[in-house]
Amino acid sequence: MKKEFDFTISNLGPCKVAPPILLSKLCKRTGDLTNYVRNDEYIVYDIEASPGDHVTFNRKHLIEKAGPRGLIFFNPEEVHAAIVTCGGLCPGLNDVIRALVMALWYEYGVLRISGIPFGYRGFLPEFNHDLIPLKPDVVKDIHRQGGTYLGSSRGYGDNISQIVDTMEKHGINVLFTVGGDGTQRGSLRIAEEVERRGLNAAVVGIPKTIDNDLSFIEKSFGFETAVSEAANALNGAHVEASCAVNGVGLVKVMGRESGFIAAYTALGTRDANFVLVPEVPFDLDGENGLLAYLHKRLIRRNHAVIVVAEGAGQEHLEAASTEFDASGNKKLGDIGLFLQDKIRSYFKEINVEVNLKYIDPSYMIRATPANPIDSTYCARLGTYAVHAAMAGKTKMLVSHVNDFYVHIPTELAISERNRIKPSESLWRNVIEATGQPASMKN
Amino acid sequence: MKKEFDFTISNLGPCKVAPPILLSKLCKRTGDLTNYVRNDEYIVYDIEASPGDHVTFNRKHLIEKAGPRGLIFFNPEEVHAAIVTCGGLCPGLNDVIRALVMALWYEYGVLRISGIPFGYRGFLPEFNHDLIPLKPDVVKDIHRQGGTYLGSSRGYGDNISQIVDTMEKHGINVLFTVGGDGTQRGSLRIAEEVERRGLNAAVVGIPKTIDNDLSFIEKSFGFETAVSEAANALNGAHVEASCAVNGVGLVKVMGRESGFIAAYTALGTRDANFVLVPEVPFDLDGENGLLAYLHKRLIRRNHAVIVVAEGAGQEHLEAASTEFDASGNKKLGDIGLFLQDKIRSYFKEINVEVNLKYIDPSYMIRATPANPIDSTYCARLGTYAVHAAMAGKTKMLVSHVNDFYVHIPTELAISERNRIKPSESLWRNVIEATGQPASMKN
Amino acid sequence: MKKEFDFTISNLGPCKVAPPILLSKLCKRTGDLTNYVRNDEYIVYDIEASPGDHVTFNRKHLIEKAGPRGLIFFNPEEVHAAIVTCGGLCPGLNDVIRALVMALWYEYGVLRISGIPFGYRGFLPEFNHDLIPLKPDVVKDIHRQGGTYLGSSRGYGDNISQIVDTMEKHGINVLFTVGGDGTQRGSLRIAEEVERRGLNAAVVGIPKTIDNDLSFIEKSFGFETAVSEAANALNGAHVEASCAVNGVGLVKVMGRESGFIAAYTALGTRDANFVLVPEVPFDLDGENGLLAYLHKRLIRRNHAVIVVAEGAGQEHLEAASTEFDASGNKKLGDIGLFLQDKIRSYFKEINVEVNLKYIDPSYMIRATPANPIDSTYCARLGTYAVHAAMAGKTKMLVSHVNDFYVHIPTELAISERNRIKPSESLWRNVIEATGQPASMKN
Amino acid sequence: MKKEFDFTISNLGPCKVAPPILLSKLCKRTGDLTNYVRNDEYIVYDIEASPGDHVTFNRKHLIEKAGPRGLIFFNPEEVHAAIVTCGGLCPGLNDVIRALVMALWYEYGVLRISGIPFGYRGFLPEFNHDLIPLKPDVVKDIHRQGGTYLGSSRGYGDNISQIVDTMEKHGINVLFTVGGDGTQRGSLRIAEEVERRGLNAAVVGIPKTIDNDLSFIEKSFGFETAVSEAANALNGAHVEASCAVNGVGLVKVMGRESGFIAAYTALGTRDANFVLVPEVPFDLDGENGLLAYLHKRLIRRNHAVIVVAEGAGQEHLEAASTEFDASGNKKLGDIGLFLQDKIRSYFKEINVEVNLKYIDPSYMIRATPANPIDSTYCARLGTYAVHAAMAGKTKMLVSHVNDFYVHIPTELAISERNRIKPSESLWRNVIEATGQPASMKN
Repeated sequence: MKKEFDFTISNLGPCKVAPPILLSKLCKRTGDLTNYVRNDEYIVYDIEASPGDHVTFNRKHLIEKAGPRGLIFFNPEEVHAAIVTCGGLCPGLNDVIRALVMALWYEYGVLRISGIPFGYRGFLPEFNHDLIPLKPDVVKDIHRQGGTYLGSSRGYGDNISQIVDTMEKHGINVLFTVGGDGTQRGSLRIAEEVERRGLNAAVVGIPKTIDNDLSFIEKSFGFETAVSEAANALNGAHVEASCAVNGVGLVKVMGRESGFIAAYTALGTRDANFVLVPEVPFDLDGENGLLAYLHKRLIRRNHAVIVVAEGAGQEHLEAASTEFDASGNKKLGDIGLFLQDKIRSYFKEINVEVNLKYIDPSYMIRATPANPIDSTYCARLGTYAVHAAMAGKTKMLVSHVNDFYVHIPTELAISERNRIKPSESLWRNVIEATGQPASMKN
Repeated sequence: MKKEFDFTISNLGPCKVAPPILLSKLCKRTGDLTNYVRNDEYIVYDIEASPGDHVTFNRKHLIEKAGPRGLIFFNPEEVHAAIVTCGGLCPGLNDVIRALVMALWYEYGVLRISGIPFGYRGFLPEFNHDLIPLKPDVVKDIHRQGGTYLGSSRGYGDNISQIVDTMEKHGINVLFTVGGDGTQRGSLRIAEEVERRGLNAAVVGIPKTIDNDLSFIEKSFGFETAVSEAANALNGAHVEASCAVNGVGLVKVMGRESGFIAAYTALGTRDANFVLVPEVPFDLDGENGLLAYLHKRLIRRNHAVIVVAEGAGQEHLEAASTEFDASGNKKLGDIGLFLQDKIRSYFKEINVEVNLKYIDPSYMIRATPANPIDSTYCARLGTYAVHAAMAGKTKMLVSHVNDFYVHIPTELAISERNRIKPSESLWRNVIEATGQPASMKN
Repeated sequence: MKKEFDFTISNLGPCKVAPPILLSKLCKRTGDLTNYVRNDEYIVYDIEASPGDHVTFNRKHLIEKAGPRGLIFFNPEEVHAAIVTCGGLCPGLNDVIRALVMALWYEYGVLRISGIPFGYRGFLPEFNHDLIPLKPDVVKDIHRQGGTYLGSSRGYGDNISQIVDTMEKHGINVLFTVGGDGTQRGSLRIAEEVERRGLNAAVVGIPKTIDNDLSFIEKSFGFETAVSEAANALNGAHVEASCAVNGVGLVKVMGRESGFIAAYTALGTRDANFVLVPEVPFDLDGENGLLAYLHKRLIRRNHAVIVVAEGAGQEHLEAASTEFDASGNKKLGDIGLFLQDKIRSYFKEINVEVNLKYIDPSYMIRATPANPIDSTYCARLGTYAVHAAMAGKTKMLVSHVNDFYVHIPTELAISERNRIKPSESLWRNVIEATGQPASMKN
Repeated sequence: MKKEFDFTISNLGPCKVAPPILLSKLCKRTGDLTNYVRNDEYIVYDIEASPGDHVTFNRKHLIEKAGPRGLIFFNPEEVHAAIVTCGGLCPGLNDVIRALVMALWYEYGVLRISGIPFGYRGFLPEFNHDLIPLKPDVVKDIHRQGGTYLGSSRGYGDNISQIVDTMEKHGINVLFTVGGDGTQRGSLRIAEEVERRGLNAAVVGIPKTIDNDLSFIEKSFGFETAVSEAANALNGAHVEASCAVNGVGLVKVMGRESGFIAAYTALGTRDANFVLVPEVPFDLDGENGLLAYLHKRLIRRNHAVIVVAEGAGQEHLEAASTEFDASGNKKLGDIGLFLQDKIRSYFKEINVEVNLKYIDPSYMIRATPANPIDSTYCARLGTYAVHAAMAGKTKMLVSHVNDFYVHIPTELAISERNRIKPSESLWRNVIEATGQPASMKN
């Protein structure tokens, strides 16, 4: 219970409106109000403890539970809700959009819902994009296809003033921002600008990170689907490697700062012999380097499979980029191609035949529709985001922590990255599952 | 923090053996012993709390963390480990078997591993089954296929004395029991008999329940895969229903006492309009009955999809069975066929055309291989079970609670069923997602 | 070359219009007119021959090739095209609809395209259905979902006069009928009525039969997808059977009059030990009956898998229905449930434990979207149908014979069923793959 | 009927042995011998004809039908059969191996079956590989995994003398060679050397080419599965492209000399706007070049998808390789990376934002297990190969032509490549489906 954070959630003001439509039926249904979540329902964040520990809980230990409130801030008839999806694609974006629209429309009777095209860019007058009108009939089947119905783009989140101008112009008073780290930074600044201007608008984030690298969220939506797709690539690499003489399968997966996809894919398939992630540095050369261990594995078993997160081993690439700079910027930092070259030249030098097959599934992983479990998760996150916004919560994200749906201050969520901790159980499980050496540092 | 239980785990005796092979490398790797889990590491079970709450934690609040111990009970060279899989099939059984064998062999150097054929039956001399020798080469690819490599059967768990005789005969001193409620009851009694005879044998359970209805385990292995398969069936029902005049799609899914598969499938697909589960009784007739609501839905939208857990609405079936007893025992309790008949006759009576399509995916759901996320989960559960058993833990299950891998006393796990609570968030989410009426009781 | 049929195709009249838009570009592209198909291009139907055979080909040997014609009958601006889908669902219906709309719109510039809702029923004034306007934007994504965008129904094909009235009322002069045997019978009678009234309207069929039982079409669209889905069920049955003591997996698949799905599923999975089809009668009892052979298989191998086409063994069911008539009409003719009972009671009588698992994947097979190969096939069939109709062909189907796309007179196509011939290679391959006994007749 | 070839099949000698085991049962089963295929059963190869054409058929028109013969050449007890798989992986290799073993064992009672490890390399003494003993229990589940159970390699087919030495040493008198063009060239030369030495050994090929580029075979095994996998990549590209501002999805698929995978993938998904294949040259620059058309498409529709076969546009790459030769050999000839660069620099120059996403699914396509239809096909090809070999046929391939299983002389099969003919229907269908311009040559 040692980890403490400021979990306080901002509210636009007191909630005085009785929630309409479905929610009132929800109550009648169960005969009382227990189905509403009160603002004083919390869960503990840091749940490790020992017998004899004394705690007096305060808000630094406790996270607010998500859910429909018995009174809400907005009169649904006066709401114009908008949804924006930013950054790279991720399985489940359409499920989230769909869930937001369905919950706004059917649970609160909000009839003015707009999609912002192509991320924050869609707010900027210079690009002259139209808002996309959303309602259940429009979104009901979009989850069968990957991607985002609204389009997406990177960047444009700096033009806070213009973004809030556009919100004002259209009377948008509820904004859902679906995106990662950068998007949520923008989201927070939009909410602050909204506050500065004295607009009563709620800004609620739905965290999206295929790499699973946002803090205070157990598992990001789309992650499971991404792992399943990466597993196909890994299986392909395993098949190729095991059918060749000294076959080496090399698979690059997503993970700029965190190696969760690599780690889970290796655990889920048990076909990988080496997992390389940004959190755990490794040497290439020398007795304890990757190449020597790979050689030993080939002698022992005739084939090997390596899965590498795109952000792993960047320390080796700076040297590499100097070496090959004629190739242009594209290659800079591509650990997959770099390892491919290194492995080939290493074995060529020692005159050992290897058959290396490199697979970069890239966009195939993120453009796929969510699997049913991810769909469930997106549907629930979206619904909770609507409950939060209608209750006037702002500068916050919906999240899932310790198996509860909760509210997290956006400021907290963007304060640090979620990364694999080499001393904890996930990485130990990876070592156990792959049998890769204790350390690949000399 | 109000829920308290006896979470104390039994140990065969003090741990004095330094764990061999990979584990020692794990420590060296990280430079210290933090990668071992100490017996005094716990997490809190009931994590709901309010500011100002005081707690002094004791063992009734705290669950023991799973993981490799710095000292173990068994000398690996003296271990004969056995694995038994019991009851109905479930995606991931082969992943669990594989993980157990891999962890025993590669992490502890246990070379004597046997599979018990066809569940507890395989222990009974009258059936004359041979033990199945297990090692990495035998199990390395079994996870690509559904089912259990060892075979399974129901029952036979009462013959405790014979079972322990067989264990003694073969010198089995580590037993892994993979199965549900009944299997774990048997497992506990085996462990008690082992204790009574003064044998130093560890009995560790891996909980298996496709219905997700075991307590003290957040999510059972194979559940996600089962939901994905059920989602296919539901999608089929939706397609059929929406392509017909007054089309009604009816899908029966697993769930004898708990409707989790039905609920998650409905949430994940958003194609269901009515979800019927054992935990929430419903009327058929009358103004607030299912049939009237179904009729209204058809008038409004021309089609409807119903997902029913096999254990739902049993109160209606007793009457039904009296009514149709000429049909024999098979039909008794089949809520799917019962609803099919009811719906057809109701609409025939009021002279409304309906086109009902009934889908019972049954064994297709449980015979499928685990998806990569379930595989990951099985791999980790299996590995933790090996760590527990080697440390001399017994009369316990490995489990996953509040996002940690933990040890649960078997006695506690079998004391009650995990069921959907209609007043909590999952069921509210189902109501929100389906739009089904507040209550279908008159 | 012995089989002769009347392959003559009907034309509405001479073709005098130069095909517009894309097609003219197609010609320019290749520099000449070879990309148009001439009306005198044919392929041979019966291609078995011996050295020394003399043939002088006439139209009884030769099938007209499908493809765009250099002159067409209709001025695209005067066309109102309609599409109707009838009967049971089949993977690929939406691909066909999509291809028809795309080819009409983009290749010929036909801008008036209507969907007839719910099969022939949509033509009948009493049901008061509206036409569904179709254009590329409406249909571009429909193939991602199973079923038919237009809805379907059975029957209503007898009201020829009303159907043609509705065509006249809306000025429909090109009609595509997507359906099986019954639908194409209706299609032919519509075309005849159209002719009787002196309307210049083309009626072109796209044959649909998930059972692959239409003659003069090598492989019906959706068949491959159906086999893939059935293979999942069979694999489930195999897993269940092989994990149980004397496990018997029993799978019922579609195939009222022809056992192609059963045969291909067995060949594709090689998990079946017995394949029962309508074309090959079998005994249940006696030394050479199914039950005795099943018993032998269980003694030898401990498990068995049976795949049965729904139309197989109907001769046994008449007796059965007399026997169990209290059960009502539903059970009558259900060979799956019948075999389940028979097998259970047989082994109960001889006191042998069996664990029978019955799987009826039913609608899951036909409600699934087409796989990419079936999509390709549907896209090509639809395009050829448009070429045929625009050239004024009528009373015909598009088909695929001896690896060519061709035109078949509807009259010929409905004259007989395509069935497995026990003396030919497919059935021999089934016997080889399953090892099932030479004959199961006493 | 104009195309004539020498379809004569070589026989080792007269067939005098009555085929044992299952085959004799097959006959009894049908009451006569019609289930055997006679050596004088043929089909016509070139089936295009016109009314009035006269033909007197000779062996230049007629292909021998495959199937079990009533008398065979080998006494099964004296057979040592071997299987070798060569070249790149292809879905279905394990299905073929499995079918060969099953047919040899169960239909003919051949009990000596060996696998040659790693292609022709496995025959060469210098590599010291052991033969892999094969029997039903070994191969029964191998088809669930992609790749080849025997391993594969490229080349080594020149050492004919050593290969036949090894055959003699082990007494191999039936050899099945599974591979493409190069493999079958080797196969023919092995058969010729066998003949030269007066050994009575049959050498029968099973043609394998994921690109579908072997002549005299309608569709190669694994091709459908490959198209399905490529369709996933194309779908990913479509999703990425349509979610971005001026999104361009670029997918490279297999197809060194023939663009069949590209063409079918485009037809099956209808998501491609440009299909580039080796058979149809295209310009990049100029008014009618790809880049100008791509620009127009982006203006009109905001996104575009390009699928390119790896062998397409090689004429552009020679220039390119001179330009970028610092990058080394790897890049030479990579049309995917080349187009990526070209498109990016073209739009950069004209100052138009594009978001290009490049997908190279590469090995993921070929390492996947066969889908059920391909499995069926492999199973049948393998079985027919066994029938051919046991009847003493040699220097031949099993194939599928005009919907019949047939024997093709190896010499003929390797004489030319199967390629897309731009003037025929497949390519016209691609143009129709993509709407790509008539010609992209200036």
